[in-house]
Amino acid sequence: MNYKNIQVHTDGAISTLILNRPGKRNALSLNTLEEMGQALKDLAERQEVKVVILRGNGSVFSAGHDLKELVEGGLKEYRKIFATCLKAMLLLRKIPQPVIAAVHGIATAAGCQLVAACDLAVATEDARFATPGVKIGFFCTTPMVPLSRVVGRKKALEMLFTGEFISAQEALQFGLVNRVVPAEELDEAVKDLAERICQFSRTVLGSGKEAFYRQIEMSESLAYAYATEVISANGVMPVAREGMAAFLEKRRPVWPE
Amino acid sequence: MNYKNIQVHTDGAISTLILNRPGKRNALSLNTLEEMGQALKDLAERQEVKVVILRGNGSVFSAGHDLKELVEGGLKEYRKIFATCLKAMLLLRKIPQPVIAAVHGIATAAGCQLVAACDLAVATEDARFATPGVKIGFFCTTPMVPLSRVVGRKKALEMLFTGEFISAQEALQFGLVNRVVPAEELDEAVKDLAERICQFSRTVLGSGKEAFYRQIEMSESLAYAYATEVISANGVMPVAREGMAAFLEKRRPVWPE
Amino acid sequence: MNYKNIQVHTDGAISTLILNRPGKRNALSLNTLEEMGQALKDLAERQEVKVVILRGNGSVFSAGHDLKELVEGGLKEYRKIFATCLKAMLLLRKIPQPVIAAVHGIATAAGCQLVAACDLAVATEDARFATPGVKIGFFCTTPMVPLSRVVGRKKALEMLFTGEFISAQEALQFGLVNRVVPAEELDEAVKDLAERICQFSRTVLGSGKEAFYRQIEMSESLAYAYATEVISANGVMPVAREGMAAFLEKRRPVWPE
Repeated sequence: MNYKNIQVHTDGAISTLILNRPGKRNALSLNTLEEMGQALKDLAERQEVKVVILRGNGSVFSAGHDLKELVEGGLKEYRKIFATCLKAMLLLRKIPQPVIAAVHGIATAAGCQLVAACDLAVATEDARFATPGVKIGFFCTTPMVPLSRVVGRKKALEMLFTGEFISAQEALQFGLVNRVVPAEELDEAVKDLAERICQFSRTVLGSGKEAFYRQIEMSESLAYAYATEVISANGVMPVAREGMAAFLEKRRPVWPE
Repeated sequence: MNYKNIQVHTDGAISTLILNRPGKRNALSLNTLEEMGQALKDLAERQEVKVVILRGNGSVFSAGHDLKELVEGGLKEYRKIFATCLKAMLLLRKIPQPVIAAVHGIATAAGCQLVAACDLAVATEDARFATPGVKIGFFCTTPMVPLSRVVGRKKALEMLFTGEFISAQEALQFGLVNRVVPAEELDEAVKDLAERICQFSRTVLGSGKEAFYRQIEMSESLAYAYATEVISANGVMPVAREGMAAFLEKRRPVWPE
Repeated sequence: MNYKNIQVHTDGAISTLILNRPGKRNALSLNTLEEMGQALKDLAERQEVKVVILRGNGSVFSAGHDLKELVEGGLKEYRKIFATCLKAMLLLRKIPQPVIAAVHGIATAAGCQLVAACDLAVATEDARFATPGVKIGFFCTTPMVPLSRVVGRKKALEMLFTGEFISAQEALQFGLVNRVVPAEELDEAVKDLAERICQFSRTVLGSGKEAFYRQIEMSESLAYAYATEVISANGVMPVAREGMAAFLEKRRPVWPE
């Protein structure tokens, strides 16, 4: 595919989706969101890709929706923009590959939402996160959906009501990101994390991710019942047979997928 | 209104609801809870009020229900007391204004519940929090509802099973409060936080708060669908039009509300 | 009962359930899980027992399921093993006594699940926790159920996708354990925590625990309505009457149970 607002690079089992509107602080215009959705759908089908990295080109990760588009929009346009945004966000959950956000600079509004919606996130020490919609009378209602599910109620409300930035260190403490590294080590740290995950079976990573997001919505007893079925079926899959055999024979597994 | 157990002061866009039974460690007697409920309902209607602060007069924030009333009560009285308490707690959620708890001294049992139930909380360094009902055979069952939703399962169970205090620092770490400040800076810190929020539109703060507590109860995919509708409608509201225009024109917005 | 894979010791009001397969790193074989389930059912009936401690004999807490059994199993065997595991895990929730995990060495896979599923946990400074199933193509789907409900989404996904250990300090920070102590102080720290809880009424601890796990599954407003009924009924129980009277008379309560 030839994209205008994003780039997709694949190196071995790792694909990197780059938000590529550096002059616009990687604003998530309608076209950008459509391209993201298309790219994620394509990546889901690519059997050789085991991990997806999401990052921004230029000085920031993403400043959220494109204010220029919002200023010009009416209800019909907003519905289209936010529905397209929603599709892309849900695809982050639905594709079988773990998605790692690599965050530098700032991640605000829908940019902060992207970080919250990715499975994992690594940030630079100077990265900052905010949901500042309240400042322009346009509350960050959609960003709060994944945000409140990772950072907890009071931290989410503080971010939403004040619109102020939190530091990378706070993002780490409250569970919005997994790791914080010096700016010059971001690429290496994300690559390292991706490569650790790439050792494992794509099939198992994908079914594990799917089961994670299903069970988290259930009551604990239903989640247990569901997980018990999933893990029983996993055990008889060739991938588990090979994994267990390799472990006992003290060799590297060759995943049958 | 003329209250006996509480006071309500309004200064500009900030109202402060003061628990005012200092000789009783601000025990939440039935009358106090009824007055709190009435005051919150009144505040909800006051269009000029943008933020509510909840604090206690005297040496502590609140020591919870009034033991004297509980000792004398039967099932009928308990139902009335706890139903009245519930009404006040739910009103903290339902009023459109963000509510900030300003906590000093101790916040125990239903006093700790109040802190957990407020949208935001600021505490002094020496403030302490506990759910000690287990010590008198009267388990803190209602306090655990909001508490377990902010501090997580194991911390909540530790507090509930041991009845012991946690420090302000732990309260911060586990998400029960947003900020911890030296005792002499509490008023200033809470005022500062309130004023930052007061810059914004009452309409937007109110609809944002309502959407927050609705979406947090939904599965993530329903929450996203709901939030997508809410934010699309927000965009065409005069308040967002003015907010975006002011931002682009680099001036302060004049909220049309 | 005479158990082969576990031991149960009772000292006053505290029972300790010991995983006793030190040569097998306390692997949770089918028989071990069956014995655990039986022991928990028995403990639930023992009126003199107020707190249960769960620990492992030997160099580790537990390394999870018995790989030897898994290697040999088919779907029928897996269903039996994981259903038996599920029963034991749910019994940790269902028995009226608070259960404290005392963790040393490592707690991996279903061993990590045990820690997450206990009400409280204390760990040694050098204890480590992992859900490494992904490494053998057998994703830790059942462990993720309680794990994701205590450590949050991003931390749980990191553990599940990388299979790597987290330290005791991280386990503390993310809410998987309540306390971290030097290795030589584990027994004393767990005993101390258990004894603090043993001061209280078994009836109240049991009904409090039951209410906790019920309300946590509900929407907050239903949880409040439920908790309001539970606490009203608690107030008229002899145990609350005695607790309040003892408090006002400044004497130790004598729980009527």
